[in-house]
Amino acid sequence: MSSQSIVLTGITTTGTPHLGNYVGAIRPAIEASRRHDVLPFYFLADYHALIKCQDPERVNRSTLEIAATWLALGLDTANAVFYRQSDVPEIAELAWMLNCVTAKGLMNRAHAYKAAVQANEDSGEGDPDKGVTMGLFNYPVLMAADILMFNAHKVPVGRDQVQHIEMARDIAGRFNHLYGEHFVLPEAVISEDTATLSGLDGRKMSKSYDNVIPIFLAEKPFRKLINKIKTNSLEPGVPKDPDTCTLYSIYKAFATPEETAAIRRRYEEGIGWGEMKGVLFEYLNEHLKAARERYDALMEAPEKIEEVLQEGAAKAREYSAPLMKKVRASVGIRPLSR
Amino acid sequence: MSSQSIVLTGITTTGTPHLGNYVGAIRPAIEASRRHDVLPFYFLADYHALIKCQDPERVNRSTLEIAATWLALGLDTANAVFYRQSDVPEIAELAWMLNCVTAKGLMNRAHAYKAAVQANEDSGEGDPDKGVTMGLFNYPVLMAADILMFNAHKVPVGRDQVQHIEMARDIAGRFNHLYGEHFVLPEAVISEDTATLSGLDGRKMSKSYDNVIPIFLAEKPFRKLINKIKTNSLEPGVPKDPDTCTLYSIYKAFATPEETAAIRRRYEEGIGWGEMKGVLFEYLNEHLKAARERYDALMEAPEKIEEVLQEGAAKAREYSAPLMKKVRASVGIRPLSR
Repeated sequence: MSSQSIVLTGITTTGTPHLGNYVGAIRPAIEASRRHDVLPFYFLADYHALIKCQDPERVNRSTLEIAATWLALGLDTANAVFYRQSDVPEIAELAWMLNCVTAKGLMNRAHAYKAAVQANEDSGEGDPDKGVTMGLFNYPVLMAADILMFNAHKVPVGRDQVQHIEMARDIAGRFNHLYGEHFVLPEAVISEDTATLSGLDGRKMSKSYDNVIPIFLAEKPFRKLINKIKTNSLEPGVPKDPDTCTLYSIYKAFATPEETAAIRRRYEEGIGWGEMKGVLFEYLNEHLKAARERYDALMEAPEKIEEVLQEGAAKAREYSAPLMKKVRASVGIRPLSR
Repeated sequence: MSSQSIVLTGITTTGTPHLGNYVGAIRPAIEASRRHDVLPFYFLADYHALIKCQDPERVNRSTLEIAATWLALGLDTANAVFYRQSDVPEIAELAWMLNCVTAKGLMNRAHAYKAAVQANEDSGEGDPDKGVTMGLFNYPVLMAADILMFNAHKVPVGRDQVQHIEMARDIAGRFNHLYGEHFVLPEAVISEDTATLSGLDGRKMSKSYDNVIPIFLAEKPFRKLINKIKTNSLEPGVPKDPDTCTLYSIYKAFATPEETAAIRRRYEEGIGWGEMKGVLFEYLNEHLKAARERYDALMEAPEKIEEVLQEGAAKAREYSAPLMKKVRASVGIRPLSR
């Protein structure tokens, strides 16, 4: 609609946002929402959630928590288009149309599908497709629809997601070839330095490792969780290596370079783990306090969040409805007239 | 909504209706539309058309011709719900939700897909999925959505389509098991005696054999086409076998038992092929004349057909919108509220 570059990110509504999400995805997205050369489309990917989560309460709860988190952390909804995937009916329709131009062979090569097949083979399972749903098999096509629906130029992704963007490009190219130039070929933006955060056990913070620290917890459980972060058994007074320490890496992800340098010195001086945990808790607590208050207030007023999402959906449909009308006409689905 | 039994039939919008369609599908459907114990849902399956037809003009033209044909032949739209698949956005959405509960293994076993793979193997093609789109692979799920969206009890199908109804039952059962009883398990109604009509060359009348006689042609080309119907080379005066004769079989499909018996006698008496072609033309022409006039008038007023289809879509959505709302809520997609 302008010279703004369209950036698109989806968040699957199956969990509670944790510090790893904040540092890796939410913070950069919110920063981008304040830039004027970027038009961000951020959506709650509830259709995607259904692929792996058959617990309705969890999908619903996660939608609420994610939306409240992004808003509490300062998402600029005056610039960003913030919506629920399922509130834009054109997406499912486009997904079908893209299905019709997508080679099945392309989906056979999708990493997530191949990993599922491999796991079946490794476990000696006779049926390579055991436990694979059509949702899993088909989801790169839905993802292509998510992206192409808004003609996103750039899709920030981790390395493991690059293939999906390439597939979306392929599918867009095929559709354009058959029916005319409707879709921008999207580009993956790989953030090599995407901050991945270490979790409680030192591995990457991830729901699948059950080692996460939620962003918004009341002070008491928040402190308790930080106290649980694994360290080595060096005594206070003994110099410590910050670069292999989870506490340090989390601190660093939030603090300024100056603050971080000061803490490095404390490590050299042999700061005790108990003290460092206290420092980390105080720092994060201070950093997140105001947002936490906003989060708590939003969680108490879900109907306000719903309103924001409905406004977002209306904005999204200003793009999707006219594009879909053209796409529909291009394949031959048109009102009958002389 | 009542004690009416819901019957559903889709017509793929890729061709011009021919006499074989009329006898096999359109006539019984129109008869059913006049029964009061049946609530028929008849839809123009334009999403399905996109699987095999990438010619937009043909999809559009076919939509017009099929709708005009059904209306001209007397479809009772006061009783039947007559709509375009793509005018009911809930169908594509439901299709996605069903994807998420459908085992990929089920689709691996679909006849149409297996036939495509077999054809590749037979031709020595290394890639068994060559030329197979996700539309083809996925279409039993879309068909399940078509059926389950209106909780159809009965789906009249040919033998080759029974598997799709079984798949729709499987998928419905799986969804009901996971999310509560939302869907009726549909039943295939196989019409063993479905009149299949012979085409110009004596094989089954079918677009794929290029041997069809369109229902509505102007008198002159209609007569010409009937004159092209293949017969044997027996001379006038020689008794002929009606049961192996295409002319007879077409006549019989339209005439009363008395009229048919009379023609049988003419065969025994040795009616000439030229004369019999004249008899058949006169009979069909008389039979179709009034409908052809209505058809021609409708083809001149496509906007009237569009109006009828929009009314049909509004009626269809009286069913699909509330059901989809419940289905959405059952999987966890709900407005946020306390």
